[in-house]
Amino acid sequence: MAYITHKKREDIGLSPYELKFRGKRKAEAVRIRVIDFDLESVRETEVKETEELRRYLNSDSITWINVDGLHNSQLIRDLSEIFAIPGDILSDVMDPSSRPQVEVFNNGFFVSMKMMRVSENKRTVSVNNLSLVVMNRLLISFQEEKGDLFDPVRERIRNHKTKIRISGSDYLAFTLMDVVIDNYIYILDAYGEKVESLEERLILETNREMLRIIDKFRRELSNLRVDIKPAKEMVMGLVKLDTDFIQEENRRHYKELLDNINQAVDLLDYYREVLYDDLNIYHSSMSTKLNDTMTLLTIFSVIFIPLTFIVGVYGMNFDNLPELHWHYGYFIVWGIMVLIVVVMIVYFRRKRWF
Amino acid sequence: MAYITHKKREDIGLSPYELKFRGKRKAEAVRIRVIDFDLESVRETEVKETEELRRYLNSDSITWINVDGLHNSQLIRDLSEIFAIPGDILSDVMDPSSRPQVEVFNNGFFVSMKMMRVSENKRTVSVNNLSLVVMNRLLISFQEEKGDLFDPVRERIRNHKTKIRISGSDYLAFTLMDVVIDNYIYILDAYGEKVESLEERLILETNREMLRIIDKFRRELSNLRVDIKPAKEMVMGLVKLDTDFIQEENRRHYKELLDNINQAVDLLDYYREVLYDDLNIYHSSMSTKLNDTMTLLTIFSVIFIPLTFIVGVYGMNFDNLPELHWHYGYFIVWGIMVLIVVVMIVYFRRKRWF
Amino acid sequence: MAYITHKKREDIGLSPYELKFRGKRKAEAVRIRVIDFDLESVRETEVKETEELRRYLNSDSITWINVDGLHNSQLIRDLSEIFAIPGDILSDVMDPSSRPQVEVFNNGFFVSMKMMRVSENKRTVSVNNLSLVVMNRLLISFQEEKGDLFDPVRERIRNHKTKIRISGSDYLAFTLMDVVIDNYIYILDAYGEKVESLEERLILETNREMLRIIDKFRRELSNLRVDIKPAKEMVMGLVKLDTDFIQEENRRHYKELLDNINQAVDLLDYYREVLYDDLNIYHSSMSTKLNDTMTLLTIFSVIFIPLTFIVGVYGMNFDNLPELHWHYGYFIVWGIMVLIVVVMIVYFRRKRWF
Amino acid sequence: MAYITHKKREDIGLSPYELKFRGKRKAEAVRIRVIDFDLESVRETEVKETEELRRYLNSDSITWINVDGLHNSQLIRDLSEIFAIPGDILSDVMDPSSRPQVEVFNNGFFVSMKMMRVSENKRTVSVNNLSLVVMNRLLISFQEEKGDLFDPVRERIRNHKTKIRISGSDYLAFTLMDVVIDNYIYILDAYGEKVESLEERLILETNREMLRIIDKFRRELSNLRVDIKPAKEMVMGLVKLDTDFIQEENRRHYKELLDNINQAVDLLDYYREVLYDDLNIYHSSMSTKLNDTMTLLTIFSVIFIPLTFIVGVYGMNFDNLPELHWHYGYFIVWGIMVLIVVVMIVYFRRKRWF
Amino acid sequence: MAYITHKKREDIGLSPYELKFRGKRKAEAVRIRVIDFDLESVRETEVKETEELRRYLNSDSITWINVDGLHNSQLIRDLSEIFAIPGDILSDVMDPSSRPQVEVFNNGFFVSMKMMRVSENKRTVSVNNLSLVVMNRLLISFQEEKGDLFDPVRERIRNHKTKIRISGSDYLAFTLMDVVIDNYIYILDAYGEKVESLEERLILETNREMLRIIDKFRRELSNLRVDIKPAKEMVMGLVKLDTDFIQEENRRHYKELLDNINQAVDLLDYYREVLYDDLNIYHSSMSTKLNDTMTLLTIFSVIFIPLTFIVGVYGMNFDNLPELHWHYGYFIVWGIMVLIVVVMIVYFRRKRWF
Repeated sequence: MAYITHKKREDIGLSPYELKFRGKRKAEAVRIRVIDFDLESVRETEVKETEELRRYLNSDSITWINVDGLHNSQLIRDLSEIFAIPGDILSDVMDPSSRPQVEVFNNGFFVSMKMMRVSENKRTVSVNNLSLVVMNRLLISFQEEKGDLFDPVRERIRNHKTKIRISGSDYLAFTLMDVVIDNYIYILDAYGEKVESLEERLILETNREMLRIIDKFRRELSNLRVDIKPAKEMVMGLVKLDTDFIQEENRRHYKELLDNINQAVDLLDYYREVLYDDLNIYHSSMSTKLNDTMTLLTIFSVIFIPLTFIVGVYGMNFDNLPELHWHYGYFIVWGIMVLIVVVMIVYFRRKRWF
Repeated sequence: MAYITHKKREDIGLSPYELKFRGKRKAEAVRIRVIDFDLESVRETEVKETEELRRYLNSDSITWINVDGLHNSQLIRDLSEIFAIPGDILSDVMDPSSRPQVEVFNNGFFVSMKMMRVSENKRTVSVNNLSLVVMNRLLISFQEEKGDLFDPVRERIRNHKTKIRISGSDYLAFTLMDVVIDNYIYILDAYGEKVESLEERLILETNREMLRIIDKFRRELSNLRVDIKPAKEMVMGLVKLDTDFIQEENRRHYKELLDNINQAVDLLDYYREVLYDDLNIYHSSMSTKLNDTMTLLTIFSVIFIPLTFIVGVYGMNFDNLPELHWHYGYFIVWGIMVLIVVVMIVYFRRKRWF
Repeated sequence: MAYITHKKREDIGLSPYELKFRGKRKAEAVRIRVIDFDLESVRETEVKETEELRRYLNSDSITWINVDGLHNSQLIRDLSEIFAIPGDILSDVMDPSSRPQVEVFNNGFFVSMKMMRVSENKRTVSVNNLSLVVMNRLLISFQEEKGDLFDPVRERIRNHKTKIRISGSDYLAFTLMDVVIDNYIYILDAYGEKVESLEERLILETNREMLRIIDKFRRELSNLRVDIKPAKEMVMGLVKLDTDFIQEENRRHYKELLDNINQAVDLLDYYREVLYDDLNIYHSSMSTKLNDTMTLLTIFSVIFIPLTFIVGVYGMNFDNLPELHWHYGYFIVWGIMVLIVVVMIVYFRRKRWF
Repeated sequence: MAYITHKKREDIGLSPYELKFRGKRKAEAVRIRVIDFDLESVRETEVKETEELRRYLNSDSITWINVDGLHNSQLIRDLSEIFAIPGDILSDVMDPSSRPQVEVFNNGFFVSMKMMRVSENKRTVSVNNLSLVVMNRLLISFQEEKGDLFDPVRERIRNHKTKIRISGSDYLAFTLMDVVIDNYIYILDAYGEKVESLEERLILETNREMLRIIDKFRRELSNLRVDIKPAKEMVMGLVKLDTDFIQEENRRHYKELLDNINQAVDLLDYYREVLYDDLNIYHSSMSTKLNDTMTLLTIFSVIFIPLTFIVGVYGMNFDNLPELHWHYGYFIVWGIMVLIVVVMIVYFRRKRWF
Repeated sequence: MAYITHKKREDIGLSPYELKFRGKRKAEAVRIRVIDFDLESVRETEVKETEELRRYLNSDSITWINVDGLHNSQLIRDLSEIFAIPGDILSDVMDPSSRPQVEVFNNGFFVSMKMMRVSENKRTVSVNNLSLVVMNRLLISFQEEKGDLFDPVRERIRNHKTKIRISGSDYLAFTLMDVVIDNYIYILDAYGEKVESLEERLILETNREMLRIIDKFRRELSNLRVDIKPAKEMVMGLVKLDTDFIQEENRRHYKELLDNINQAVDLLDYYREVLYDDLNIYHSSMSTKLNDTMTLLTIFSVIFIPLTFIVGVYGMNFDNLPELHWHYGYFIVWGIMVLIVVVMIVYFRRKRWF
């Protein structure tokens, strides 16, 4: 399903500074997890009171605050106050149906995009909004519910004394977005495999079931596109972003994001096109099949209709029907009928009907 | 219905300074409502004489003058004189079929766009032209008839000592446009729900009724697009507008408008595309159904046509038709016919016809 | 008909300075009308000798010289000499099949576009080339034949002491182009009404006549587009034109032209799209109709074919055909046939065939 | 045929400085013709030895050297040496399948485009590559074979003491390109006439022959587009070319080329679109025809199938078939059958089947 | 097959500095070949230890190091260390599914694109990733497996004392990319020949086999496009690249690459369009064929159905059926039937059914 939460009438006309949750509540309780790290050490805690977060404000370490669940407006308001984030930005955070966007503010920048996850049973794709507020040595990520794609990133922070430990919050933000976009490609690849397996069956099995599958895939790809396409614009805006909060040496990575999202959009368009072709082929194949059917019917009809007429003629009960009394009448009729059949078959052969 | 008032022949060649109403009269009498407010207080009045408006010209408070009904040219001319608005701008105000546009003049700027409202019975969408003239601490809005989408905004002005009270006429204009665009999305969402409910019925019920619904929705979305698409250009022009009458701190909100209108256009294109797909699927499903029908007909025909011929043969009345006198003739014929049926059925099974 | 005069072979390779008429002669004699006006007075004359025009060259009044008929090369050459218009510009004037364009020269600028007029009987649209040469206080308009859209403008000059009297030749040129573009919209509106009236009949009357109408409208709109679309580019060029011959205060009006031509192109694309949709719907409706027809045929055939076979069996003349001698044989056969019919009907009902 | 010479494997990996002919040899012998002219006189010669060309290098007159046939690499190498043309430019000259392009070099610029000519019998269009090397007072044109479109230009040089005699090699180059583009339009016009004559026959004669013609025209227009479309980009590059070798006063003419090529591309797209519409209409018309056929079949079948069944019933030979012995049995059966026919006809009339 | 290696789940979230091979291992062992040359001499060696490469670091000669096989991360890490190539660039080298790209780094630039090769049997096209790292007097090329398109280039280095020997690593890189792009065109040409040979058979042989071929070609061209289209963007980036590592005199060649890749994309789009047309024509031809079939069936049915009914009437066994006893009854019936046939034939002739 594309991420389309239907706008509620009562939300229209709200001030952009109104901190009201405008989505569908997915998480039960809000959870705040903090990973605070520098080159030397990593500290992970789960915070209950927002006040505890104040100490990360000007610390020397890099701090990643992850908020799962957006429905607690008071909490959001507290964050706004502690970290001096403008109200209209947090208002966007609380509207999960908003378009992927990037915005600069006084002491940082804000990015939002859709995060897609394949469910456990590998059948459905869940779509959630991800908001990143990037400030100096501080990254706050907002998610709609628990469970995300970022465990590999957490592992990298924990285990390696690598670049991620020393490269600032902008690099961390890049890493998270990179994971999200890589997952787009991963999901599209999964579709790709299914779509390609369709190819081989297409001309052989032209039936309603095939039509249903093509239709289903097209809808699902259309849905994905609603979420992925605007992310491209967002990344393009990000690359050109005029802000000091992206370090010069990390800009290169942001350009790489653009390459990745372009690849995702390319794939998407490619598979959509393939399915469009498939529908065309389905249609042509269907009309070929109809043709074959009608050709068979026509051949049979055209051959037997005159024969049936002839035998009807000699089934008439006229008192005076001379042929009936001819000694070889019956056999002559057979002869004529065989002749007709032969002529017909030769005719259809010539016309290459079979 | 798209907002297309058919141009009248006599209007062609009019001077752009001619203040003549070029639409269809919708309001009975012109009504002028004024909301005048500052941080401290809000004053609402309904004005009868345009002269009364002169005192808002240089007041320190923010004034929102709302005019319902455009057919009184004298009134418009008075406004032009009192507030020094160029004649060609007011001429655009009086032409409700004009394209959404933005224009700068000496002491302010002018914006027009289509305002859509769902009717009470939720069945039809009415489209009206909305014109906003934004000047220093003054906003004049022109509407074609009474009744609009702005009651929530009026509430916000009345009830809250908030940003809207202190942010100037440009912020107020933003708020109004935001409401209009949010309503586009609201209306499109409503279509979306209907379109999506169509999906499930599509392959099952391929009939004329379904075709009529798809056709109806496509037309309605095409109509909406005629009004919404040019609004996007208008907002893009607004964002890049070179005028002092938009305060630097409010420019960010105007950019948000662009995000919103982009979302509306995305939705519109998405649903149009879905309906286009639906029509394709309908078509393919219809040809599949035809195929099934013809397959059934062909199987029946191909099996029974030869049988009917055979029984016809032995219905002939020839004096000399030896088989008729065989003792087991009748049973032999039945045997042959059963054989033919079996062969046919095996043949069709092999060809996977059923 | 789109304005496509088929290029003649002998015209290829002509010098751009060659003043040769390259169109189809439409006017019988060339007619030159002059309207010379200032705020105080208006003087209209018809000129026979081109030399008479020389006195308008540096007059203080504004002069509009209108030339109907382009086939007199000598006259054109004279104008070129009197008003110092470059040869290649007048060469473009004399090629009515040239694309709408705008060009600057030393002492003015040149604009050409297609002028469309609905004929008296309101059935056909005639297309003519209109060329405007705008110089200081002087406008020369060239038309292919007598009769144009500009009578309302002439009225405005004659009757009102208004802006048009004092605003220079660039404003006059704007007025003329405005009339031409308004007429595009007027003509498109007329098509619009016809196209919309088609909608209601479309699904009900799916027949060859409907196809012919859709086809006709599409062709006509395609034709209009050939002439209107390039006008948009022309107006865009005009707005950005780097010339002193458009006064700063009139530039705004030229931008308005762009709005108008954009509206025309929007309408055009909208109606073309509607017709494209109509063709799709026609096609789907046709295949639905075919389906209904074939369903009826199949139901009848499938029910009666076995019955006809059965009565054929008992029409056979075998000496030994025991059932014929059963006392209730005939009634048993009827029973069997009724049973078959009932089973068939239940089957088709279940399958929702009717 | 589009100008697509299939790349030869052995040519891949060649140095861009390798002067090797990469096309299909069309001319038998290379011919070099020189037209050397100034305002006073014109001298035409045919040159055998390339060395003779050296004297035109710094002459005051304007020189047009025309080379027919490209397969003589030695000659090309000599030209490169005499006129100091860079090797990679001449290498492009020798690859006639290269894309239309424009390139600047030290002492001039280089243009290539496809030249189309209608054959004598007016049936086929031949496509050749034309390369122009424009230097100070010197133009070298390279063609693949003898015979070109430029005789009118040669005439203009010979006969008139006009602009072409004094305007430099850039003006001469413009003239040649103008002729080539005018010929595009001439050829497209010829197609246009054929396409338009198709319109009237389309709905009346929906048959295989019509399909073949539409198909043929579409292919041919697609072919033309392969050659014409890139020429547009080339001319756009030419207009913006940053070179001293186009005189300021001649730039205007180059802009005119752009207008012309735009017109050609417009025409091309217009006719392609018309043909696409035609195919759609053909398709819809075909399905309308099928519908008519099947309606006829169904009416006949649905009326006669029950009748045939009835007469079959009374053709059965049961000993005990009471109706057979009724005195008016035969006439009652006729009555019933007539009733059935009447009911059917009324039914189909009501349903507007005929 | 398009170059789509399905992303592995475990690769998501990897650091861009992680040197891990992300493709499918194609080469058995990594092979490093070095061609080191200056104007005077050429030295070719195969290197086993990466340390041996260190001596080419600052040599005066031009060095081309070619690495076949990417799965040895240690080797890549060594190269990174020896030649000071940033880790994230080599990480891109090791991800063969990455999009064609160009990137600048401190002491050089990096280019990647897909290299296509026709297999020996000329049936399949293999696609491999090619990465070029261009530094001062040094070019490192990375390929996925042994065997490439560059033997002609090696020949040119070995045999000729030409430009390639003295023009630096940027010219060498140009040469390699030129070969790759020329091969795109070569492959597309091969498709082109097949597609064009299809044309002639299309309308004659409208059958399932034809559909299968069209479908196959479309898929293959879609696949090619996935690899070729992004290469165009890459080359466009290359042309505008702001780096000192492309010498001014060689920039011209890079522009030529753009011409070539544009030609490739043009060809691709052209053939795709032709195939799309073919499918349309196939479809229309199929429905024409169906029409012909059904017309034949309908003519036969409509003629014989009434006749069969008539003979059925006189096959009834009513005791009282007067016509049976008329002396000329039988012949009168024949007369009536002949009359019906004649009328029918005339009717169908008139309607131009045959």
